Formats: sequence, C-alpha cells, structure tokens
Amino acid sequence: MNTSRQNIQLLSPSEAQLRIKHLLAIMQQCGIQTLVLNTPTSTFYVTGRVFRGFIVLNNVLGHPIYFPHRPVNLEGPDIYPIHKPEQILETMPGDLRNNLGVVALQLDTLPYNLVQRLCKAFNITTPANADAVMSLAMAVKTPEQQELIRLSGSKHEHVYRQIPALFNEGMTDIELQIEIERTSRLEGCLGLFRVNGFDMELYMGSTIAGPNADAPSPYDFAMGGAGQNSSIPVGGNGTIIRPGMAVMVDVNGNYTGYMTDMTRTFSLGTLPAHVTAAHELSRRICRELQGMARPGVSAAALYERAVEIVKENGLENHFMGHNQKAPFVGHGVGICVNELPVLAPRSKQVLQAGNVIAVEPKFVFPEQGAVGIENTYIVRPQGPAECVTNAPEEILPLDA
Amino acid sequence: MNTSRQNIQLLSPSEAQLRIKHLLAIMQQCGIQTLVLNTPTSTFYVTGRVFRGFIVLNNVLGHPIYFPHRPVNLEGPDIYPIHKPEQILETMPGDLRNNLGVVALQLDTLPYNLVQRLCKAFNITTPANADAVMSLAMAVKTPEQQELIRLSGSKHEHVYRQIPALFNEGMTDIELQIEIERTSRLEGCLGLFRVNGFDMELYMGSTIAGPNADAPSPYDFAMGGAGQNSSIPVGGNGTIIRPGMAVMVDVNGNYTGYMTDMTRTFSLGTLPAHVTAAHELSRRICRELQGMARPGVSAAALYERAVEIVKENGLENHFMGHNQKAPFVGHGVGICVNELPVLAPRSKQVLQAGNVIAVEPKFVFPEQGAVGIENTYIVRPQGPAECVTNAPEEILPLDA
Repeated sequence: MNTSRQNIQLLSPSEAQLRIKHLLAIMQQCGIQTLVLNTPTSTFYVTGRVFRGFIVLNNVLGHPIYFPHRPVNLEGPDIYPIHKPEQILETMPGDLRNNLGVVALQLDTLPYNLVQRLCKAFNITTPANADAVMSLAMAVKTPEQQELIRLSGSKHEHVYRQIPALFNEGMTDIELQIEIERTSRLEGCLGLFRVNGFDMELYMGSTIAGPNADAPSPYDFAMGGAGQNSSIPVGGNGTIIRPGMAVMVDVNGNYTGYMTDMTRTFSLGTLPAHVTAAHELSRRICRELQGMARPGVSAAALYERAVEIVKENGLENHFMGHNQKAPFVGHGVGICVNELPVLAPRSKQVLQAGNVIAVEPKFVFPEQGAVGIENTYIVRPQGPAECVTNAPEEILPLDA
Repeated sequence: MNTSRQNIQLLSPSEAQLRIKHLLAIMQQCGIQTLVLNTPTSTFYVTGRVFRGFIVLNNVLGHPIYFPHRPVNLEGPDIYPIHKPEQILETMPGDLRNNLGVVALQLDTLPYNLVQRLCKAFNITTPANADAVMSLAMAVKTPEQQELIRLSGSKHEHVYRQIPALFNEGMTDIELQIEIERTSRLEGCLGLFRVNGFDMELYMGSTIAGPNADAPSPYDFAMGGAGQNSSIPVGGNGTIIRPGMAVMVDVNGNYTGYMTDMTRTFSLGTLPAHVTAAHELSRRICRELQGMARPGVSAAALYERAVEIVKENGLENHFMGHNQKAPFVGHGVGICVNELPVLAPRSKQVLQAGNVIAVEPKFVFPEQGAVGIENTYIVRPQGPAECVTNAPEEILPLDA
C-alpha cells in the first residue's frame, strides 16, 4: 500500500475550485498574473496536503500547476516533478511560460536567499507578494473549512471539560499542562501549533498559574509567562498551583489541520471579587464582540469597543497584560494561529462572512494571575457570529 | 518578582566572551565587519536567552550591542530598547554607526520583506549573509554547550529506558508515542523541536511502526511515515502495533535548549533474521563512524564510509529509506536539530573538535518497518567521538 501513488489533490473538485476562484479574484485585485506558492500552509490550502515543491497559479490558465519535489509518490494531472526550483521554468507547459506576467512570490515567509534564487529561476527582478494574496484568501473560510474548524472546536471542548479532573493537589502548572497535552493527543490533537512568522515559537500552548502570568515574554502571543527554560521563554514555569491562584489554560486546538483557539480559567480556592469580576467582564466583552462581528464591521472597531468596555470598568492596567501588554484583543485563526483579520487598533481589515476569529480579552493581576476567556467565532452572513468553542466559561474550581 | 528587571545576558562573562570571539573570528574569515542577528536561535546563542529584537556585533567594538523589543524588562550594559528596526541606526552609539563596514543580515532565515526593510534601515543594498557566520559558529560547541548536550542526553536516555514499560498490547504507534511524550515532558523535555528552515515541521518526533515506515514524507527528516493528518504528513499514522513489526522511536531530546538526537528500535514478536541483521549493521556503522569522527576528517568521508559498509552487505535498497531516500546519514545538532556538519555526499565541512553530530544509519523494510539506531556524538580533540546517548542499542522487545 505504501508504494501506491497518491493524487496530489486531496480536496474534492468543487472545494478545490472554490479556493482557486477565491485566489484568482484576489490576484486580479492585486494586479498579479502568476502566483507561486511553496510553504506548508499554502500547499495545504490549495491541495489539502502539505508537500514540498511549488504550486503555480496563473490567471490565463485558471488552474494550478504542480511542481512537487517530495514526497515522490504524488500523481495527477498538471504535475511536473522537480528536484530544484531552477527546473520550474523549463519544465512548465509553454502556454504557461509565455503568459507569466506579474509573478508573485511569498515575500513575507520565504527566506531572502530563496526568493533571490526564485527570482533568477523565474527570470524576474521585482516579484509581487504572494503572501498578501494568501493571507486574504485564507482569512475567508469555505463552508468545508468551517466544518473542519467546528470539528476541532468540539474535540477541543471535550478536552477542556476534562481539565478539572486532571488536576491533583500539589501539581505544578507544567504537570497539569502535561496531562492536558496527553488528553488532547488522545482526543486526536495533532500537536503542531502552526504559527506564521520566523520568530514565533510555542509548544502545544500554555498553562499559566498565579504570578507567572505577569512575566513578560518575547513572543507576540496574548499572554506571556516565563516558561521552563530561557530557550523558549513563554508559558508555565513550574509554579506550584496553590490556593488563591488563577490558572489560565490556552492549549492547542489543532485536530484537523484547522485550529480552534480557546482559553479557559480555573482556580484553586477562592479568588478576590475584583479578579472574578474581571473574568466576568471578559465573558461580557466576548458576547458583545460576538454580536458586533458581522460583515462590513471593521476589525479595529471590535478592538475599540473592547477597550471602551474595559475603561468603563477601570481595568485598563490589567487588560491584555500588566507589565507588558499585547496590542490586540483577537486574531484570525485557521491553518495558522495568527491569520487575518487582526482585532487591533490600526487593523485595516473589514469583517467578511467566513472569517474565523479568536477573541481573547484577558486580564492579568500580578498576585492572582490571568483571568478571562477566549472563544473562536465564525462570522456569518447575518446575525451574531457563531461560537465554536463551547466549554463552560465560568472560572471552574480545580478542587471541586 | 515579575516586575524585576533581568540582565539581557544570561551567560557567564567567560562563556559569552568565548562565543563572541568565535563569531568575530568567523566574521574576519568572511570579510564581515558588522553582524546583525535577530532570530530566536541566534539571540539564544549570544545571550543564553531568546528575546525579540536585534544583536549587533561589530569587529571594531568587539562586543555585542543589544536592541531588544520584547520582553520589556531586560537591562544591562549596551542595551538600546527599540520598537522597530528603523530605530536601530539612529539609536546606536556613534562609534558603532561610523564603523559599520560590510553588514551581514540573516539571509537564510529572515523573510525577504524583512531583509528589504533592514537594508533600508541600515542604509545598505547588498547585505552579506550572517547565517553563514552563525551556522559555522554554532557547529562548534563550547565546553559549556557540550555539558548541556550531555545533560539532555542523560535525560533522553532515562526516558528511552522506560519505553518498553509504556507499551500495552493493542496500542497504536500514536498511542505509544503519546505516552513517550508524557514521560519525556515529566522528565523535563521542553517539547519544542527547533528546526532550521521555513518548511520543516514536526511535533515532538516520530514513532513509526511496521509498513508505515515506507510512506514517503515531504520533509527532509531521515524517515517518513504518513502521519496522522495530511496537514502534517510525517511519523506515526495510527498503525496498531502487531507481532512482527519493528517500531522505531525518534523523539525529541531538547531538555536544556541544546538537543540530543537519539533513535532506538523496538519490536513486537520476532523479526526476520535479515531485518535484525540490518539493525546490527546500523550499530556497526555508528561504531565505525564514531571512531572515524575526528578533527580533520571530512563529513562526506563519513557518509561514504557508511555507504561502503551498506553496499558490502547488499542493503542499498533499504538504506535511509526504501520508496524515498534521505540523502544523508547524519547531521549536526545543538540548538537546532539540523545544524552543521551534514554527513552527506557533497558536504564540504571538515570535522572539528566540538562538533556534535547525530549519526542515524537506518534501514526500511516495506513489511516489517524501520530498524537501526541514532546516536549523538561529540567530536573530541583526540580519539573516537564521545557518545552522549547511551540507551541500550539492541532491538528491545515491547512485550518482554
């Protein structure tokens, strides 16, 4: 069975067509004739599988041409296996080679030296940016992609419901996280946390207990935490979970190649009233943004509304961090955990039906830790957004 | 405690000095006056911590100047906090700004658009390649780095010794891997598998059972495996571990920020004699390369010798894959799992004392699976290399 050849295209013809149509429309808007894709994220988007090699989408041809390098057992129409990018141009059909026009490469994700090499291979000097096209296309999920996100959400939820039962007295944040990781993996979590950006790193998510929530991190995640080691300084740091601590769990929801992002807060013993109130405010902000998140509304407006509510309640000093603050309250999620739209003050995106956004209004209190929730929502053509992460939202006691 | 400021430099003065001296020597060889570093790997190499921002090392000044962006609580001499790279030039001391000379950026790892932006920020048009310097520097480990690798190796070994006890009849490859992941994490494994390259992805390593070993993968790891999902097609695929199968375990040895790489093979029931013989040949190749791995020997010679032994035993068709072959037999390992030197036919590197290499001669049999071992060795000034991954090497029965 392993020697059998596999079709490079795993998507149904209609689903593949939908995504290609989507890309072609954005290419037209951007004045791009030829899109050259070769990151794991983009090969997965176009074919439903990650392969190493290139996809070339040209607006005259209207369908993708594949130049796979690995794995070696891929087949199907329009496949031209290559060993190196220099072979693409000579290998491609003449009608494509003669109609390349403006060629776009993935300038936000490919290393500089590889882009230089591709420019030579395509005989161009000033490539357009294929990542601008990809990020816009990926931001609007097809019904099939939405269904995969719902499926991740339901598994994610099933794991989160088991969290209180995983706790034992005397555990550290990391020990609790390890049990959550195991439960997630047994539920089918793929583990891999796909993140855009050369300097974003994480392992399976974070579990942050007590004062560690206020330790600033180098990464652009919503929350920090000192981490276990200075080589990956984010998340749990070995804090023993003690009475009076809030424990924030934000672990990987990648069960299908399409992720959900969900945070819940747990506690040991009783938290002060003002901390519990901040948690309830996070829930209220989520409900309010869920209601606002409709096509035509700007992503920045959602951020502004969240800040407005926070200020009305005098919690600015704790919102999205305390010592160090994250400059957003939410973000697109799908194949990667940091997609468009970004819910941030200077965000230029306007919501569309099919956007999937994680909303995470969180509050950090230096003594007790971090509270608040995060849900993933699908923006619908009409009405409030659909929540796909439906674990209980209140602060759940770990010692119940 | 979380509000306290932290020194950006976590290394001892002598260790920091040793690494800087190393970098400056390579810069001189490459004709580079100013090295600009800003990946997690390189900030960790220079300071012992990952931070977001830039390190500028100039040959006239002779010591690094830091431009951190995040975390916000870093302090120490020669620190100039910035919000964006455009501030580096105006912020830096005049004696540095006036002596920049040939500026090198990380052209193999930074995205094209970021390099373009940095070129503008530094007012240069043709940057040299800082990654060429970093990869040579990282390839020779200091005594302190070697000690961290030994520590990872001993923990890695402790986990591997527990593997047979983690197996239960009827388990799948993934279920076994999940228990290995948990055991590793409880031992202190940091989880994160740092890999160079925009298109390399893995979660914690791989456990490959039976025929799945012959499924080709898009990634440049030694072994394939179909994986659990087409979004991350590598490693275990849910194969139930049955009698007559070989089970190859190659999971993460990152316990200190410096990794060891180790593979061991287990079995259920009895394997055919020719499969067991291939495993023993892998052990023999490791021993032979361990003896050869001395300063002055070329990395390619180690590969050639491995191939020679394989051919003498008529196992070419199974060596480093069957349907799809990996074009190397080993690689440097340290902060990342794919460092220099590469033990491959066209490798240009010559071994030096302090190189740390993973040697992984593996054989794939379509029916039984993958066999062989992988050890991590430190190249010493004299004598055979030091093995730091000392778990038992024979095929261990899972059902003993």
